[in-house]
Amino acid sequence: MQQSFPMNAGDGPHSYLNNSHFQRQAINVSRTMIEEAIAKKLDVKCFSSNPFRLADLGCSVGPNTFIAMQHIVEAVERKYLAQGLKSEMPEFQVFFNDHVANDFNTLFASLPTERRYFACGVPGSFHGRLFPESSIHFMFSSHALHWLSKVPEELLDKNSPAWNRGRIHYTSGPEEVSHAYAAQFEHDMEIFLSARAKELVVGGMIVLLIPALPNGIPASQSPYGVKFDLLGASLMDMAKERLISEAQVDSFNLPIQLASLEQMTELVERNECLIIERMELECAMFLRAGLEGVFAQHFGSGIIDQLFDRLSKKIMESSHQLEPVGTLLFVVLRRK
Amino acid sequence: MQQSFPMNAGDGPHSYLNNSHFQRQAINVSRTMIEEAIAKKLDVKCFSSNPFRLADLGCSVGPNTFIAMQHIVEAVERKYLAQGLKSEMPEFQVFFNDHVANDFNTLFASLPTERRYFACGVPGSFHGRLFPESSIHFMFSSHALHWLSKVPEELLDKNSPAWNRGRIHYTSGPEEVSHAYAAQFEHDMEIFLSARAKELVVGGMIVLLIPALPNGIPASQSPYGVKFDLLGASLMDMAKERLISEAQVDSFNLPIQLASLEQMTELVERNECLIIERMELECAMFLRAGLEGVFAQHFGSGIIDQLFDRLSKKIMESSHQLEPVGTLLFVVLRRK
Repeated sequence: MQQSFPMNAGDGPHSYLNNSHFQRQAINVSRTMIEEAIAKKLDVKCFSSNPFRLADLGCSVGPNTFIAMQHIVEAVERKYLAQGLKSEMPEFQVFFNDHVANDFNTLFASLPTERRYFACGVPGSFHGRLFPESSIHFMFSSHALHWLSKVPEELLDKNSPAWNRGRIHYTSGPEEVSHAYAAQFEHDMEIFLSARAKELVVGGMIVLLIPALPNGIPASQSPYGVKFDLLGASLMDMAKERLISEAQVDSFNLPIQLASLEQMTELVERNECLIIERMELECAMFLRAGLEGVFAQHFGSGIIDQLFDRLSKKIMESSHQLEPVGTLLFVVLRRK
Repeated sequence: MQQSFPMNAGDGPHSYLNNSHFQRQAINVSRTMIEEAIAKKLDVKCFSSNPFRLADLGCSVGPNTFIAMQHIVEAVERKYLAQGLKSEMPEFQVFFNDHVANDFNTLFASLPTERRYFACGVPGSFHGRLFPESSIHFMFSSHALHWLSKVPEELLDKNSPAWNRGRIHYTSGPEEVSHAYAAQFEHDMEIFLSARAKELVVGGMIVLLIPALPNGIPASQSPYGVKFDLLGASLMDMAKERLISEAQVDSFNLPIQLASLEQMTELVERNECLIIERMELECAMFLRAGLEGVFAQHFGSGIIDQLFDRLSKKIMESSHQLEPVGTLLFVVLRRK
């Protein structure tokens, strides 16, 4: 069974809709890089068929996905012009993908009316096939691939050396826990890349923005890692005050992998149909809107406000130099 | 501005989900006819490209759309086998279309897990383009095309001869009202057919099931027409009891056209890209689940239970022989 933790739905004060401006900044930072990838590496001459099909994998409810898709459509249009193919300018069709539990009603209600593409929603996990063979020309995924398809099974077994007592992530945990996370991530990425390679047309492109580990820093000292540890410590404090039970904390693990550039490079190189066009590190953000769901599902929504209040205090008191910034891996792949 | 009156959402006692079994019966009755149309009239040899793309226009939230799509996929698979194209069996992609206000979250949550197709939701009115050019092989629409894109404008003007005082439909109304409805329907169908002709691949097929007028019976004496008159009379009774105002009833009109086989034939023949393969009348049903939304939007949801209770009584008292049955137009078109 795959797990799904949709971003906060609707349009309330803690909704993803109203709290995704940092992710949007990351998209703007990456905009130039995406435009460059399309201008330099996407050969639209090799696409025989109208229309041009794009997909956003893990799109959530907007507005970031609309901004990103608009940028990509415009960049592709410029590429058709640059390649002297004005008369063959295609129609565009955008597939917005996310888990079945994503709030597609909100997504559809906020679709830009002036869009220059036909819009579809595609419900389902990207850890599996979503589209027919050779049917997509460009795929995009932002702030989604760091989510594992599920918590590694070893972490659910009290008698396993990977039982993660008193913690909620592999940061600062025993090696067995890190190994279990890494193995799950490798498995997920293999399935993800193999599915995408089948769905992409020859010459098609994938652009990924993934929260990741900065170069040469162990997970426990990375901005994300430190915050995950502080989240865990906040929960343990609440357990000591009997607001939740320790057993609840022990059995909870955040299904997020902080991949390094090296790990990601190795995983992509295992796929024989995809070429790495670009792979580098950038800046990124961390926000309640993206994480609340996974905690609420396990601990109940009653504790959420208090948990994030406590986290804020711990961050203030922390000796670490914590800016609201993480690291983002920017990846451009092309289908052979 | 186009209007949208989605079927009752969710899964409550009056939801479309739990009250669409009559529509489903109609689909089962039509199943054989659809299978016959595919077996005899769909030449899959002329489709060069994988995948095979289907669309359900006005799909609502299921389960009827899933049943219909499954039947069509199976019938197309049989056709590939029958034409000796087993090795070229395509993958299937189904586009579920309805208004933006449709409950796509419920639709996606109830998608059959064992489906043999890739699923997409397409939000938007089918009175306009929904898909890229030449991209769909088979289109289906059941119990949707009788809805006008909007109430004809003349009916909103108190000084027009088409002001429909004390009635909610053109049945039993002045000729000007019928004309305004017919003109709106012609306009809508022209746009619908022209959009579909663009979106269909050459050789592609459209199957339509539309609530319609029985042969040789005026609208005012047809099962639907009689019920619309009784609904209007129920509202006027409620206005006399001051539960609603007469002005509210005067300004309300049900945007539904009961087309005849002759009218529909003529409208399709105006489109130069589509051939009529079959056009005939069948049986159909009438239900609260499909109509509640349009009344609730105008009169408020507080009156709905009472309105349909009164309607039931009026039907019981009525001198007409009213079975819960209307007439359905079964149409098969092919793209030249």
